[in-house]
Amino acid sequence: VSAEDRTLDLWVGEQFQDTLQMRFRVRRTLYGAESEFQRIDVVETEGHGRMLFNDGKAMLSERDEFVYHEMIAHVPLFVLPAARRVLVIGGGDGGTVREVLRHPGIEYVRLVEIDAAVVEACRRHIPLTAAALDDPRVEVALEDGVAYVARTKERYDLVLVDSTDPIGPAAPLFGGMFYDDVRRLLTDDGVVVSQAESPFYELETQAAFVALLRERFARLAVYNYTNLTYPGGLWSFTFASRGELCPTADFDPRRVAASGIDFRYYSAAVHLAAFALPRFQERRLAPWLTAGKEGPCKSPAAP
Amino acid sequence: VSAEDRTLDLWVGEQFQDTLQMRFRVRRTLYGAESEFQRIDVVETEGHGRMLFNDGKAMLSERDEFVYHEMIAHVPLFVLPAARRVLVIGGGDGGTVREVLRHPGIEYVRLVEIDAAVVEACRRHIPLTAAALDDPRVEVALEDGVAYVARTKERYDLVLVDSTDPIGPAAPLFGGMFYDDVRRLLTDDGVVVSQAESPFYELETQAAFVALLRERFARLAVYNYTNLTYPGGLWSFTFASRGELCPTADFDPRRVAASGIDFRYYSAAVHLAAFALPRFQERRLAPWLTAGKEGPCKSPAAP
Repeated sequence: VSAEDRTLDLWVGEQFQDTLQMRFRVRRTLYGAESEFQRIDVVETEGHGRMLFNDGKAMLSERDEFVYHEMIAHVPLFVLPAARRVLVIGGGDGGTVREVLRHPGIEYVRLVEIDAAVVEACRRHIPLTAAALDDPRVEVALEDGVAYVARTKERYDLVLVDSTDPIGPAAPLFGGMFYDDVRRLLTDDGVVVSQAESPFYELETQAAFVALLRERFARLAVYNYTNLTYPGGLWSFTFASRGELCPTADFDPRRVAASGIDFRYYSAAVHLAAFALPRFQERRLAPWLTAGKEGPCKSPAAP
Repeated sequence: VSAEDRTLDLWVGEQFQDTLQMRFRVRRTLYGAESEFQRIDVVETEGHGRMLFNDGKAMLSERDEFVYHEMIAHVPLFVLPAARRVLVIGGGDGGTVREVLRHPGIEYVRLVEIDAAVVEACRRHIPLTAAALDDPRVEVALEDGVAYVARTKERYDLVLVDSTDPIGPAAPLFGGMFYDDVRRLLTDDGVVVSQAESPFYELETQAAFVALLRERFARLAVYNYTNLTYPGGLWSFTFASRGELCPTADFDPRRVAASGIDFRYYSAAVHLAAFALPRFQERRLAPWLTAGKEGPCKSPAAP
């Protein structure tokens, strides 16, 4: 589809769980390709900037990508001020890497993206996020993240699983074997943060996922953010520590002010608030979570 | 439109700011009427329960109405444990009244809804919220809220402005004259909480609205919630105190546990977290806000 003609009533969007449609007004299409793994499209919208779609699902918009990317990166990095080496799985758009690089202690970021077409599309059309991939501290590896974590002898202070939904190419990124390997490659106090879907629409997916993580990590918490492009608005990340680090008790708000970074969504208050889950979500996930807003990290009550 | 035939591909939804469409799959239409003020529709959806639309805009769904209604009611009521009399402006669906009535100290609730058709539609088709209107502590007044606050000699501990967007019949509910009258009818420590639109999409509307409130109220805060049916997911309420009450410093989390109320979204942690605004919103509204998550309520920095 090509549509330079602004009079065309052109919309793009996704149908979610057969019950909801979200559509964005399109000015023009910029990129479309069938890769080995999925369909990739970039469009320029009216009101939401440029948007990336994988298999017709909205991955990011220029208007609100800062929310997701700030929250996946800064929540763990302000709990891990000594982090030097970061592994990003997925995230070929570059937005997560961009935020990681704002921390001056970071020496090396490896981005492992299975689909070269995502990186190519974003380098050409979404420099807002992809420009970060040209930073000399970054190595872009176009390979399967599952295979990489299985074979590597490298160790990382932080792993960010910046994945799509648990279907298609990203499905193994929600599995136990992948997290066995992630656990092994983390440094002793290492942390893995993972994209964990919508509490409103995918609470049972979240429950299964945190149960799987809890078998492998000593500390486990969930935190939320809210954006414009994912169905339901409210979405979650998991925060899993190989050691004893707690994302609230081991968080020093003064570090945020001292960083001098000019955030658009994140703040010290937002960091702590993000762990205050809606009651329905907290109740369902409580058997597996070890860190909450109200107190120190402790083992969960018996399920 | 009538559609008992489930094979029909029937969707209902709204177009927002000419850039975004949200549509919900419809099983059947239940109610449609043109009132003196607006078009009212109730539909039964696939996945979101029954939904109410005013002039084609989603007002509530049975699936997520608990978020909005818990957050408009319980945040102020746990700051005002002695509240006895509550005035609800708008909110003809009854959901706000339902949550208010869960506090045993409440003696009287006056619901002032301009449009009888909203109450009628919800009484017939959305008892989940409207059943509360039959409680003996509730008086339903079908009249203009602006006219009521201008003429009444009654006083209230809490006013909840459960309005639609600042266009059409709800426009005067975002005006200075209305809030002059609301201020006058509040008890000395009284509070008014108002529906305040989306920070992502309506930040300038929010800024103008909080500026208007700040001229009339000694303490002013904004808090957020996130739901499925309003565009952008994240929406806001204002919390304005006639006296010195602060929604965070004067909030005692122990009261929430002691209440024994079984919430689905609200909790003590969610109460406090809701005042931690995204940085872009906090920065824009800071000149007028007096209460934040981080510290005691104080006068704002000079704008």
